Amino acid sequence: MVNAGAMSGSGNLMDFLDEPFPDVGTYEDFHTIDWLREKSRDTDRHRKITSKSKESVWEFIKGLLDAWSGWVVMLLIGLLAGTLAGVIDLAVDWMTDLKEGVCLSAFWYSHEQCCWTSNETTFEDRDKCPLWQKWSELLVNQSEGASAYILNYLMYILWALLFAFLAVSLVRVFAPYACGSGIPEIKTILSGFIIRGYLGKWTLLIKTVTLVLVVSSGLSLGKEGPLVHVACCCGNFFSSLFSKYSKNEGKRREVLSAAAAAGVSVAFGAPIGGVLFSLEEVSYYFPLKTLWRSFFAALVAAFTLRSINPFGNSRLVLFYVEYHTPWRRKTTKLGKYPVLEVIVVTAITAIIAYPNPYTRRSTSELISELFNDCGALESSQLCDYINDPNMTRPVDDIPDRPAGFGVYTAMWQLALALIFKIVITIFTFGMKIPSGLFIPSMAVGAMAGRMVGIGVEQLAYHHHDWIIFRNWCRPGADCVTPGLYAMVGAAACLGGVTRMTVSLVVIMFELTGGLEYIVPLMAAAVTSKWVADAFGKEGIYEAHIHLNGYPFLDVKDEFTHRTLATDVMRPRRGEPPLSVLTQDSMTVEDVETLIKETDYNGFPVVVSRDSERLIGFAQRRELILAIKNARQRQEGIVSNSIMYFTEEPPELPANSPHPLKLRRVLNLSPFTVTDHTPMETVVDIFRKLGLRQCLVTRSGRLLGIITKKDVLRHMAQMANQDPESIMFN
Amino acid sequence: MVNAGAMSGSGNLMDFLDEPFPDVGTYEDFHTIDWLREKSRDTDRHRKITSKSKESVWEFIKGLLDAWSGWVVMLLIGLLAGTLAGVIDLAVDWMTDLKEGVCLSAFWYSHEQCCWTSNETTFEDRDKCPLWQKWSELLVNQSEGASAYILNYLMYILWALLFAFLAVSLVRVFAPYACGSGIPEIKTILSGFIIRGYLGKWTLLIKTVTLVLVVSSGLSLGKEGPLVHVACCCGNFFSSLFSKYSKNEGKRREVLSAAAAAGVSVAFGAPIGGVLFSLEEVSYYFPLKTLWRSFFAALVAAFTLRSINPFGNSRLVLFYVEYHTPWRRKTTKLGKYPVLEVIVVTAITAIIAYPNPYTRRSTSELISELFNDCGALESSQLCDYINDPNMTRPVDDIPDRPAGFGVYTAMWQLALALIFKIVITIFTFGMKIPSGLFIPSMAVGAMAGRMVGIGVEQLAYHHHDWIIFRNWCRPGADCVTPGLYAMVGAAACLGGVTRMTVSLVVIMFELTGGLEYIVPLMAAAVTSKWVADAFGKEGIYEAHIHLNGYPFLDVKDEFTHRTLATDVMRPRRGEPPLSVLTQDSMTVEDVETLIKETDYNGFPVVVSRDSERLIGFAQRRELILAIKNARQRQEGIVSNSIMYFTEEPPELPANSPHPLKLRRVLNLSPFTVTDHTPMETVVDIFRKLGLRQCLVTRSGRLLGIITKKDVLRHMAQMANQDPESIMFN
Repeated sequence: MVNAGAMSGSGNLMDFLDEPFPDVGTYEDFHTIDWLREKSRDTDRHRKITSKSKESVWEFIKGLLDAWSGWVVMLLIGLLAGTLAGVIDLAVDWMTDLKEGVCLSAFWYSHEQCCWTSNETTFEDRDKCPLWQKWSELLVNQSEGASAYILNYLMYILWALLFAFLAVSLVRVFAPYACGSGIPEIKTILSGFIIRGYLGKWTLLIKTVTLVLVVSSGLSLGKEGPLVHVACCCGNFFSSLFSKYSKNEGKRREVLSAAAAAGVSVAFGAPIGGVLFSLEEVSYYFPLKTLWRSFFAALVAAFTLRSINPFGNSRLVLFYVEYHTPWRRKTTKLGKYPVLEVIVVTAITAIIAYPNPYTRRSTSELISELFNDCGALESSQLCDYINDPNMTRPVDDIPDRPAGFGVYTAMWQLALALIFKIVITIFTFGMKIPSGLFIPSMAVGAMAGRMVGIGVEQLAYHHHDWIIFRNWCRPGADCVTPGLYAMVGAAACLGGVTRMTVSLVVIMFELTGGLEYIVPLMAAAVTSKWVADAFGKEGIYEAHIHLNGYPFLDVKDEFTHRTLATDVMRPRRGEPPLSVLTQDSMTVEDVETLIKETDYNGFPVVVSRDSERLIGFAQRRELILAIKNARQRQEGIVSNSIMYFTEEPPELPANSPHPLKLRRVLNLSPFTVTDHTPMETVVDIFRKLGLRQCLVTRSGRLLGIITKKDVLRHMAQMANQDPESIMFN
Repeated sequence: MVNAGAMSGSGNLMDFLDEPFPDVGTYEDFHTIDWLREKSRDTDRHRKITSKSKESVWEFIKGLLDAWSGWVVMLLIGLLAGTLAGVIDLAVDWMTDLKEGVCLSAFWYSHEQCCWTSNETTFEDRDKCPLWQKWSELLVNQSEGASAYILNYLMYILWALLFAFLAVSLVRVFAPYACGSGIPEIKTILSGFIIRGYLGKWTLLIKTVTLVLVVSSGLSLGKEGPLVHVACCCGNFFSSLFSKYSKNEGKRREVLSAAAAAGVSVAFGAPIGGVLFSLEEVSYYFPLKTLWRSFFAALVAAFTLRSINPFGNSRLVLFYVEYHTPWRRKTTKLGKYPVLEVIVVTAITAIIAYPNPYTRRSTSELISELFNDCGALESSQLCDYINDPNMTRPVDDIPDRPAGFGVYTAMWQLALALIFKIVITIFTFGMKIPSGLFIPSMAVGAMAGRMVGIGVEQLAYHHHDWIIFRNWCRPGADCVTPGLYAMVGAAACLGGVTRMTVSLVVIMFELTGGLEYIVPLMAAAVTSKWVADAFGKEGIYEAHIHLNGYPFLDVKDEFTHRTLATDVMRPRRGEPPLSVLTQDSMTVEDVETLIKETDYNGFPVVVSRDSERLIGFAQRRELILAIKNARQRQEGIVSNSIMYFTEEPPELPANSPHPLKLRRVLNLSPFTVTDHTPMETVVDIFRKLGLRQCLVTRSGRLLGIITKKDVLRHMAQMANQDPESIMFN
C-alpha cells in the first residue's frame, strides 16, 4: 500500500507531465470534488448538445455520438482490460517457466508451449521434451543429481531476485503509484478525491509490466487487486479521449466504477461477480445506468480475455499465479530501503517455499487441488485413501474410507504451509510493488478448510455410529466432502478479510461452477461477516483508507450521535469570525488580502457584515482567476475598485474607480442547513449529495461553515468517545 | 393490477380493522413519508437504548436483543415465506390434478403422489395406476371414447370455472388489494408511499389462497409477482411485532426490501437473483446493511422451501405453474363486471388451450421442454430428427440432422401457441385476481427462440457450405443448439418487459444452472434493454405506476432541464401568498382558521410577516393535536391566546390571556434551497434524501415551498414538452 508520505513527496512522477494544467472547473490535487456541481455542469453540457442537435443533421449526429460515447468507452475499456489481462497471463506463464529452464526452439515459448509444438512429446510425458532444457542441462549438461539440483535452485533464486529487483526499481523510478493493490485508493478516488497521476498512463504501463515481474518472481502476492487498478487506468485513459468524461470529474468516476467491474471480471473470469464487487465494495456513487454499463464492460472484458487465452482455459485456471496479504503491517525498519526489502523477502520466499510441495507450486494450482474431490483416478497425495477389499463391514455402510499414509503426510505439509503462508504474506504486504489481495486469503482458508474436512471425514469413518454421523451419512453416499470444506473455508476467509457478501458468493460460484453449493457458501459468507464484524467493523480496504488518512466518508458507517450542526461548524466559540465577502462594499485589495491570509476553498458572500444575510458562495480559485483576468484585461480596475456580486453596480461616490462585477463567480445556490440540524442529517446530506461544504444559518443569518473534513473529524471524535456503541449497530 | 378507483373506494377492506389508529408520528393513508424524519426518529430511539444499556445488565441484554431483532425478523420472514411457497406448490399440484380426476386411496393426494404410494405402479407407466381415477372413470365408468373425453373436458372446464369464481369472489369481498402482481404497488410503498392495508394480514391470507385457486384454474398467469407480495405481507406482519420496525415507516421499508428478495428467492429458487431483483427492480432505499439482511432472508427462504418440497425438485421445477401478462390493457367493458370477466376469460382459456399440446400443459413444463436439448433418448416431438444411416456425407461433417415430420408439426403448433399465448395474456392481464409476470414472458420468448433455433439449425444443415456455417460448425460438434436459443429468447423477452439486466442473468442461471451460457445471456439482456429502451424508457412496473398515478419519483429518470426552484415553487405569480405562521404574533383562533381553510401538510414559521425570515416548519397534524391537547388540559388557553414558537414567551400587554408555547412541534431544521437552485439539484435532493417538502428562500427570506407532488408534476410537464430528449439520455 502507498503511505501518505510516499504520495505527497512524489516529484518524480512522470504522470504529472501528462496532466493538463488545471484551469477553472478542475480541482487541485488531494482535494475533494463537489458532486452536485459536476452533475449540474454535465446537465448544462447535455442541454447544449440537445438544443444544438435540432439545428442541423450534423449536430444531430454529433449529439447521438455523444450520447453513445458512454457505451463506446465501455467497449474500449473491456477490450483493453481483457487484452492486458491476457497478455499478463501469457507473460507470467513464460517468465515463471524461465526460472526453471528455456525452450531451445524459441526462447519465448513457455514450457507447455515448447513441448506442445514438439513432435517428440507423448501425452503421458507431456512435461518432458528434449527442446525444453532445464538450466542445469543447458549449462553443465546434467539433468539429475545434487549438483544439477543446486544449480537449478540457484538459477531459480537468481531469476526471482532479478525480476523482483527490476520490478521495485521500475516502480520507484517511474511510477510510485503503481505499488500495492490500489483498491483502497480507487475507493477513495471514486468517493470524489483527486489523486493526480494515480490512474495515469505511466502508472498503467509500469503496473502492467511490474505485475508480470512480481508474479513471475514467485512472491506471495496476487494479481487481482492490481488488475482492478490497471483496468481503472484504462478507464481513465479512455475517458480522457471524450470531452464528456475528461472535463467532468463526476462522469469520469462513473466510467471508473465500470472499469473496476471489468478488472474483477478479467481477474477471476467472473463478469457478474465483477459488477457486484464494484457495487458492493468499491463504488461510491453507483446509479443504475452505471450498473448496466459496468455489466457491458465486464462482459466485453471477459469475452476478450477468453478469445485471447490460447490454452482454452476455463474458470479455475484464470486463477493463475496469485497470492496476497490479508494482514496489516504499517512499516518495518526494512521499509526505509524498499529495494533491499523486496530482495530479502523474495530470497526468503524462494528459499523456504522450495522444500514444501504445497508452497512450491503456484497458489492457484494449490487452491484448485484443495477444492477438488478425490475421484477414482486421482493421483494427488491428498487422495491416498486405503481401499481395503477385506473390510469386515459392507462397503456401502461406511462413510468414506480410512486415510492412507499420503493423507497424513499431506496434513503435516499443509499445516506447515499454512503457517508459512500466513507469516510470509504479512511480510510481503506493503512492499513497494504491485500486490493483490484475494488469492492468499483464499489459499489460507482453503488449506484450513481442507484440513478440517479431512478431520471430519476421518471422524465420521472411525465413529460412524455417532448420532450426527448416523443420521447424516446415508449408506452408499459420501457424507463428508473435504473439497467442499476447502471451498467454504476459502470463501469464509476471503469474506472475513474483505467483508464482501453477495459479490463473494457470486465470484466463488463463477469461479468453481458450484451452483449447488450456494447455500453453504452463503452461510459461510454471512457467518464470516458476523464473526469478523465482532472484532471490528472495518474490512481491509477501509482499514487501509484509514491507515493512509484519506478523506473517505464511508456509506457503511452509521452516525448515531446526538450532536447538532452548531457543534461542528466553524468558527467555534472563541475563534475569530468567519471570513466572508460582502456583496458590494469590499475593494479588490481587501479581497486579495483575505485570499492571501487564508487558505479556505471558498468564501460565503453576505449582504453586509451587519445583516449577515447569505446570498451565495464564491470559490477561491475562481475569485483569484477572475481578479487576475480583470486586472490584466479590464480597464480602470485598481486596488480600490469596489467588487460587487449584485446584478446592478452599487451607488458609488463620484471619482471612485470603476467597480468590478463578479456575479459570474457567485454560486447562488449554496447548500445551507440550520444550526439546529442534527449532525446525523448533515452526515447523510454530505454522503448522499457528495458535498464539499455546507453553510450553517439561523433565521437566514450566516453563522458558520461545515466542510467535509470537519464532518470526518467529528465522526472520528465521536467514534473514539463511544466505542461501545458499535455492538448495537 | 389495481386501478386507482378500486383503491380509494375500499370501505370493505378487513385490513383497515387491524391497523392501529393513526396517532402522532404516523402518516395518513395515500401520503408520503419523510425519510429524514424517520431516520432521525430511529436514531433517537437507538441512542436511548444505547445509553440505557449502560445502566443495568437487563437493559444491556434488551439492547442486544433490539440490535439483533433485525436478523430475527429476517429469519422469521425467510421461514414463513419458504413455508407458504412450499404449501402453495403442494396445493396447486393437488388442485391442478383435481381438474382431471381424484385419488381413491386419499382424495388429498395429487396424481403423482397417488400413484407413487400405489404398489401396482411400474416405472414405465408411472402415470397410470388404478387408484387414480379420471372423472369419466369415476362417474360413468368409461376411460376411453368420445363421451369419456367430453365428460372429462366438461369437468375440467367446470373445475377451472369454480376455482376462478372462488378466487375472484374472495378477492372482491375480503381483500381487493390481493389482486394483480403487487410489484408496482410494492415499489411505490418502498419509495415511501403509504397504502394502508396493502400489506395486511387479510391480504396475506386471501392472496395466498386465491393464488392457489387461480394457478390451479389454468389461467394464463403466474405466481412470481404475487409471491413477492405475499413475502412482503409476511415482512410487514413480522415488523409489526417489533416496535423498532412497527413504529418507524423508514425502518419498516428496509424489512420489506429484504422480504421482496425472499419472495423472488422462493418464486424461482434463486436466492442471489432475489437479492439483486430487490436491489435493481423493487427497492428505493437500499443500504448495504439491507443487502446483507436480504441475502440472509433469501437464504433462509430458499432453504426452507427446499426442506419442504417433498419431490426433491431442483431448479427448473420450482418453476411450476406460472404465467403472466407482459402487455398492457387499461380497461374493457367487461372490466366493470370483474367476476363475469374472470369467468369468461377462464372459459375461453380452458376451451382454446386444450387442443394444442403446447398450450395444454403447464407453462413451466413447456419452458423446460423448450430449454432442453435433444439427447439420444429424447422422446419429445421437438426431437424428431431423421437419423439416416445411408447418408452420402460422412456423419461427422454434418452440422446436426435434418428435421423429421414431428419437428415440422411442432413448429406449426408452437407458432399457434405463441399467438394464443400473446393474445390470452393480454386479456388475462388486469383481472381482479392475483397474477404474476415472469413466466408468460419467458414462455413467449422461449417459443420464439426455439423456433428461430430450429430454423437456423436447418439452415446450417441444408447450407453447411455457407461461410458463416463453414467456419463456425466444426465437424463432429453441434454448431446450433436450439435449446440455447430458447433460453436466450426467454431471457431477452423477460428483459424487454421488465428491463432487468444483472438480476435477470443471475436468475436465469440460477434457474437453469447454465453458467457456461453467461455470455449469450448477458448479450441478450443488454440487447433487449437497448431495443426496448428505444421504444420507451419505462419497464412494465414503471408503466403500471404511471398508469395508476402513484407519486413515484423514479431514480432511473434523469432530469436535465434548465428550470430553477423559483419556477416550480408555490405560490406562483398571481397566486395568494404562502400560508405561514409567525413566531409570536398569531392567536390560537388565527391558526385554527388557517388550518380549516387550507389542506397543506404543514406551515413554515417566520419571524414576522414583514421580515419573512424563516425559523422552522410545523406539521399540520402535530399542530392540530397540540392545540387540541392544550385546549383540553392547559388552563387559560382560549381562542385569543397568542401562540409562540420561541424559547421565551413574547412580551404581552397586561390582561392578555395565557400564551401557548408550541416550540415542541416546531421543526428547527427544515430543508431549504435558494430560489436560484437548479431543479436538477432539487430533484436529486428529493430523491436521495426522501423529502416530502422543501422551502425556498432568498437571502434568508422565505419565498415559497416545493412539495414532492410539485416536483413530480413539473417532471411530467417537462417530459411532455420535450419528448425527443429521451434519445440522448
